[in-house]
Amino acid sequence: MSAPQNLRVVLASRPVGRPCPDDFRFEEAPIPEPADGQVLLRVQYLSLDPYMRWRISAAKSYAPPIEIGDVIVGGTVARVEVSRHPDWAEGDVVLSAAGWQQYALSDGSDLRRLDPTIAAPSTALGVLGMPGFTAYAGLRNIGQPKPGETVVVAAASGAVGSVVGQIARIQGARVVGIAGGPEKCAFVKDELGFDAVVDHQAPDFAQQLAQACPDGIDVYFENVSGHVWDAVLPLLNNFARVPVCGLIANYNDDPAAASGPDRLPATMREILAKSITLRGFIQHEFVDAQQDDFLREAAQWIKTGQLRWREDIVDGLEQAPQAFIGLLDGKNFGKLVVRLDR
Amino acid sequence: MSAPQNLRVVLASRPVGRPCPDDFRFEEAPIPEPADGQVLLRVQYLSLDPYMRWRISAAKSYAPPIEIGDVIVGGTVARVEVSRHPDWAEGDVVLSAAGWQQYALSDGSDLRRLDPTIAAPSTALGVLGMPGFTAYAGLRNIGQPKPGETVVVAAASGAVGSVVGQIARIQGARVVGIAGGPEKCAFVKDELGFDAVVDHQAPDFAQQLAQACPDGIDVYFENVSGHVWDAVLPLLNNFARVPVCGLIANYNDDPAAASGPDRLPATMREILAKSITLRGFIQHEFVDAQQDDFLREAAQWIKTGQLRWREDIVDGLEQAPQAFIGLLDGKNFGKLVVRLDR
Repeated sequence: MSAPQNLRVVLASRPVGRPCPDDFRFEEAPIPEPADGQVLLRVQYLSLDPYMRWRISAAKSYAPPIEIGDVIVGGTVARVEVSRHPDWAEGDVVLSAAGWQQYALSDGSDLRRLDPTIAAPSTALGVLGMPGFTAYAGLRNIGQPKPGETVVVAAASGAVGSVVGQIARIQGARVVGIAGGPEKCAFVKDELGFDAVVDHQAPDFAQQLAQACPDGIDVYFENVSGHVWDAVLPLLNNFARVPVCGLIANYNDDPAAASGPDRLPATMREILAKSITLRGFIQHEFVDAQQDDFLREAAQWIKTGQLRWREDIVDGLEQAPQAFIGLLDGKNFGKLVVRLDR
Repeated sequence: MSAPQNLRVVLASRPVGRPCPDDFRFEEAPIPEPADGQVLLRVQYLSLDPYMRWRISAAKSYAPPIEIGDVIVGGTVARVEVSRHPDWAEGDVVLSAAGWQQYALSDGSDLRRLDPTIAAPSTALGVLGMPGFTAYAGLRNIGQPKPGETVVVAAASGAVGSVVGQIARIQGARVVGIAGGPEKCAFVKDELGFDAVVDHQAPDFAQQLAQACPDGIDVYFENVSGHVWDAVLPLLNNFARVPVCGLIANYNDDPAAASGPDRLPATMREILAKSITLRGFIQHEFVDAQQDDFLREAAQWIKTGQLRWREDIVDGLEQAPQAFIGLLDGKNFGKLVVRLDR
């Protein structure tokens, strides 16, 4: 009988356009041995997020690209299997960045111990994790909705959008979600409590959005781009704020090859005519200053029932490539997480 | 002999694309009589500014469009010819908004008395007026250059760009100007003292701009758009700020008819990847809070020789339409002003 191995997923080739399963390769490697000052992590949950599409392309981005043959990066919830570090004990459940693999080493500096009394550990990858903080930071620093203003968020049933809308409602804004298909729309309206929801797959989507926003749009939380932007742009009010935290509709495209018409002049004209703010951001910018506030406030909102979430859990690391490809197509419903081990 | 008349220019037709002389019509009307509480103004200088292109189109903008048959709007320096208002005396020289005509009435509420000891009255339309304040407010509120940062400004010899660059230098930034043709470039470098200048008419403009910005671009003051934006975009640094105060290259175009390629996806990707801020603004937003600061600081900079300017003066209201059409083509050299009467 062979020794247990560390199953992992490495980048086989850089996807051109939409990734395909062959861009990912499964490997087995020996389970690593922790040195003094290290812990061995066993991954329980792996987060799948749209930003990973950027990291596996060669494009210049906010972080260096993953090299061919490297394990794909990713946030994880893991259990400490072996500790040779004084601050961590066997059995600790931690937020970590082990990536697409079953086991990893850590020196503890990138770990955060999770409190299971607030919510299930997997939420550290979603509503209480990077996606939730992205929503919080984008609203707090850029969107800044005032009571009575209209906030529109796309991908409203997703990990970020669902939190954007709920926080904006807590802050007194009128929130309109955009989602794809009747099931997601019903969830956004009925479960998350948005004031209105519009299906971007509807043929008259732009008209429906205009009807759902009779007072225009004061904050548009941009995390999809594509045809949603074209419907949002003419509805933006004077002094509207647009936190840009994702462009999932474009991630598989080569921007240099985008065919016409050229939508930039119309966008720039609206920005000027209406004194609009567009601000790109990566949540990392705000972590040091505001993450503690977020965790404290979000825990309270969860307690009062004002902040809800939905997870889309896929079982087994073997499913990760296909689930990730589906994420870019909008096939997930809620925060997409791969469960490796309970 | 007929009585003196008020020569004025009205909108004859809405220009489609580039305006032509026939879009403007000259009229003579009786010189109006001031009522109690009014003054009669005789216009000395009329300001020609790119924003007027928007006002004579039907497009929704920050101000309602001028109707066919209306006198074209515009900032003016005028002398009080007759006063029936206690606060104003015959001979006062005032900043006013008389538009494209020789005479106008005012109730005084839109007038500002000019101090000729600071600079010639025509500067109230340029370096000490709306264009100068546009530069000041865009830098103070949006660009916020830090010492050592690189600031790039297009139309650098123009009314706004020339002030942007000089104020940014006063604040310790490294300033790169963009201008059209060797004469304007020499003025920007030698007279205004910019650190570098690049000619946007050069076939290798983008490469020259990259060479002039070895540390990238931290602030890009957008007042032209067009192909300049394409050269600027890849050079923007993380957390770059882009005050958008004008898009002169697009003013004659119908944005809905812009042919491809679509430049919006690449722009949005850079905004996201580099946490860039784009913020449109109209100087009016900041007038109440900051115009007094500007006038005080600018007067001081003029006194010390740190703030210089150039005017492009055209004689006679008859020349206004052609001069305005030339402005949109970049034919002026310095702040474009029509002199009606000394």
